[in-house]
Amino acid sequence: MAVYTDVSDEELETFIDSYDIGALTSFKGIAEGVENSNYLVHTARGPFILTLYEKRVRPEDLPYFLGLMEHLAAAGISCPLPVRDREGRILRELAGRPAVLISFLEGLWVRRPSIEHCAGLGRALARFHLAGVDFSMTRENDLSLPGWRALFDAIGASADGVIPGLKDTIARELDYLGANWASGLPVGVIHADLFPDNVFFLDDKVSGLIDFYFACNDMLAYDVAVCLNAWCFEPDTSFNITKARALLQAYERERTLTEPELDALPLLARGAALRFLLTRTYDLLNTDAGALVKTKDPSEYLRKLRFHQRVRSFRDYGLGAH
Amino acid sequence: MAVYTDVSDEELETFIDSYDIGALTSFKGIAEGVENSNYLVHTARGPFILTLYEKRVRPEDLPYFLGLMEHLAAAGISCPLPVRDREGRILRELAGRPAVLISFLEGLWVRRPSIEHCAGLGRALARFHLAGVDFSMTRENDLSLPGWRALFDAIGASADGVIPGLKDTIARELDYLGANWASGLPVGVIHADLFPDNVFFLDDKVSGLIDFYFACNDMLAYDVAVCLNAWCFEPDTSFNITKARALLQAYERERTLTEPELDALPLLARGAALRFLLTRTYDLLNTDAGALVKTKDPSEYLRKLRFHQRVRSFRDYGLGAH
Repeated sequence: MAVYTDVSDEELETFIDSYDIGALTSFKGIAEGVENSNYLVHTARGPFILTLYEKRVRPEDLPYFLGLMEHLAAAGISCPLPVRDREGRILRELAGRPAVLISFLEGLWVRRPSIEHCAGLGRALARFHLAGVDFSMTRENDLSLPGWRALFDAIGASADGVIPGLKDTIARELDYLGANWASGLPVGVIHADLFPDNVFFLDDKVSGLIDFYFACNDMLAYDVAVCLNAWCFEPDTSFNITKARALLQAYERERTLTEPELDALPLLARGAALRFLLTRTYDLLNTDAGALVKTKDPSEYLRKLRFHQRVRSFRDYGLGAH
Repeated sequence: MAVYTDVSDEELETFIDSYDIGALTSFKGIAEGVENSNYLVHTARGPFILTLYEKRVRPEDLPYFLGLMEHLAAAGISCPLPVRDREGRILRELAGRPAVLISFLEGLWVRRPSIEHCAGLGRALARFHLAGVDFSMTRENDLSLPGWRALFDAIGASADGVIPGLKDTIARELDYLGANWASGLPVGVIHADLFPDNVFFLDDKVSGLIDFYFACNDMLAYDVAVCLNAWCFEPDTSFNITKARALLQAYERERTLTEPELDALPLLARGAALRFLLTRTYDLLNTDAGALVKTKDPSEYLRKLRFHQRVRSFRDYGLGAH
C-alpha cells in the first residue's frame, strides 16, 4: 500500500493542465503497489492513473518500461498506455519525482485465483511473450543469479533471524543454481512479476496486465515459473496441480514450450522461488518500522522452494509429455 | 492512509450484486482517511465509495451519521449520499465489518488553503449548520470536556515522553476550561472535524463536505473554532488573520454569530486545540509501529493552543465589532 509523495495543489494543477485531458475533478491516492506512488485522477475526459516513481525505480530504466507499454498496446495487449502531454512527452517530473500519466484499465485483480483464472493468465502470458518478440529495446534481468548473490551478500547472517537456518538453505540453493542454471532457452521480454495483483479480470476473463517495472529480457520459461509460484499454490502452500495444468495448457495453446524449456521448468521454478524469498527477506530486514508498507512473508517462498526441490520433472506440474 | 480490511472476491461480487448499480468494473483501496477502510468502486453506473467501518467507529452511532448524510443531501448540502440496496437497506455488512456504499463526490481537497478557500469553507460551514437545524436525531459530543479528561487520564505521564512538560500544560488547561467552559450558546449539529481533507473544491469553490463520523450535537461556534485551527494557521503555525477574517465574514453572511458566541470564540478555540492535541498525543502513544497509519504531530496543536491562550478577544481573529 503506497503513497509516498505529497503533491501540492499548484504543482498538480499545472501538471494536469499540460495534458489535453480536460479539467481535474478528483485526485485520490491508491493503496496498492509497493514500489511507486499511484493516484487515481478523474478529469472531464475520464479516469487516469498518475504514477510517481520512488527511489527503488532507476530513472534510466523508465524509457524501457514506458516504451514496452506503448509497444504492447500497439500489438493489441491490453495494458496501461502512457499519455503524451501537449508537447508529446511521456516521462515528466512532478514533486521532484519522475512522473507518468497512464490510461486507466478497467478490471479487478482476483484475491483467490480459480482454475479458470489460471488458464486466463496462462493465455495472457503467452500472448505477452509473443507481442514482446519485436520490441527493440533490451534490459538485463538484474534479479537473476548475480542479483540474487548480491542480495544474499547484503542479507548475510541476518537471514537466520528471519527464519532459523535460512542462511544455509539459501547458500546451498545458490550453489546448486549457479552450477545448474539453464541456458540456451528461448529469450524475450518477460514481465518477471506477474502476480495476481498485476492481472485484471472482468467477467472472469483477463482484461489487462499492469505494472511492468520489473520487465526485462530473460528466458521466457522463467516468467512461466514465476507464475506457477504466484498462481498455483493454495493459501496453505499446497501445490494445486489442476491450476498448474490449466495455466500451462492455456499458455501452450498460444506458444508451445520447447522440450528444453519443459525440462528446465523445475529448475526455473526453484530460481523463481529463491528470487522472491531473497527480496522478501531483504525487504523485511530493510523496511523501517514506520514505513507505510506491508511487508510480505518470506517463509511462503521458502515453502515453495522446498516443493520445487522435490519435483522430479515438469510432469509434476500437471503436463503430460508432448 | 488506510485500508485495513481485505475483501474476498466472492463476498465483493455478492455485495455489489445486491445493489441496482450495474456490474463491477474496478475496485481500488484509497489511501486516505484514518478511521475506516475506503474503496473506490467503479460500476457500469459510475463511481462509488465503499466504506468499511473499523473498530474506532461504534456501530450504534452509524444510524446518526448515515441519517445525517441523507438529511443534509435532502437539504441541498453537497455531501455523499448513502446508496440503498435492492431491499432498501443502507447499513450492510461486508468482510465482518459494518459497510456502506455512498455516492462519489467530485472535487479535490486543498493541501494549502488560500484566503478564497477559507471564505468558501466559512460559507459551507454556516450552510451546514443551518441545514442541520431540523435534523431530528441527536448524538452527544464524546470528545468534549469529559472526553478530554478521559483521554488525559489514559495518556497520563506518557505525555511528557511526547513533549517535555506536556502533562502539566494539559492539566492546567483542563482546569481552566473546566472552570470557564461556555454554556448557553446556540447548539445544533456540528461536523467537529472539518479539516481541509474533508472539504472538496472544484474551480476554487466548495463542491462538497465529507466524513461525518465525528458529527454530533454541540455548540455551533465550537465547530467554527475547530475550523479556525484547521484552516487559518500557516505551516509554521503562524496565525493568518486574513484567512480567519475571510472564514468568519463568509460564515456570518449565512448565519450571524451572536455576541456571546463571539465572546466565547477564544475559549472555544483553546478547547478545540486541546481536543486535537489530546487525540494526536493519544494516537501517537497507541499506534503500533507496524500499523499502516501516518500519525499526526501533536506539537502543532500545542503551538495553536498557546496562540489562543494569548488571545484577548474575537477581534484578534480579524472580526470588527458587530
